[in-house]
Amino acid sequence: MASIQAPHDPSGDKIAASQVSGTAVFDPAGEKLGQVYDIVIDKVSGQTDYAVLSFGGFLGIGDRYHPLPWQQLQYHTRLGGYVVDMNRAQLETAPHYDADDIGRWSGGHSRAVDAYYDGGITPGGGDAGLGSAPIR
Amino acid sequence: MASIQAPHDPSGDKIAASQVSGTAVFDPAGEKLGQVYDIVIDKVSGQTDYAVLSFGGFLGIGDRYHPLPWQQLQYHTRLGGYVVDMNRAQLETAPHYDADDIGRWSGGHSRAVDAYYDGGITPGGGDAGLGSAPIR
Repeated sequence: MASIQAPHDPSGDKIAASQVSGTAVFDPAGEKLGQVYDIVIDKVSGQTDYAVLSFGGFLGIGDRYHPLPWQQLQYHTRLGGYVVDMNRAQLETAPHYDADDIGRWSGGHSRAVDAYYDGGITPGGGDAGLGSAPIR
Repeated sequence: MASIQAPHDPSGDKIAASQVSGTAVFDPAGEKLGQVYDIVIDKVSGQTDYAVLSFGGFLGIGDRYHPLPWQQLQYHTRLGGYVVDMNRAQLETAPHYDADDIGRWSGGHSRAVDAYYDGGITPGGGDAGLGSAPIR
């Protein structure tokens, strides 16, 4: 049986948004990078466009927030979390914003994130050269 | 500018899931029915399939949770919340579960909810005759 409280349940095809938040995120080598902070959905269609990952910091202080296209996240049953096809170094150069900016989301955010990931992240590959600046 | 913290911002097309939760829900006459408790998304596609509304009770005690297809919710700028095309009486006969069952979501839930709303709720109309029993 699926369970909205058990994101690690491989048999369920639905999950509550509140349960996605807090789920761990790993790199392809299984190293924990951070966790899902929130998801961003389209108001009309209801499509989940981005998962916002939080990395680093301590108790939210110094955290950085990285929006990734939802399709970048693959659920991994054994790890009990999502795997993204990026390592920590790649993620650090990806579009992000600081805790003070968490309240804002603009079309510019979407374009920056889309451009970065459409540019192609390859496992172990180099920096795509976009989005190294924080999102403002 | 859109803002993930401002679900009442009509100019934004994106919203954080955490901000959908807690947003008020009204009937077509503008009477407040309750609020969004959570949303249920498809793990793979990321599509928001259901908004779970909470009604009644006090501080979560005695609350009942009604999953509605996402498309049933229309955002209303002036009210600052979502409007559903049902009144309180109709909602009370719609598929729901109690607080103790909040942790479970099964294919049966989806089928019950889909069958009820596909059956057609018309404003001011009668009970569609489905889903009057709690979801188990």
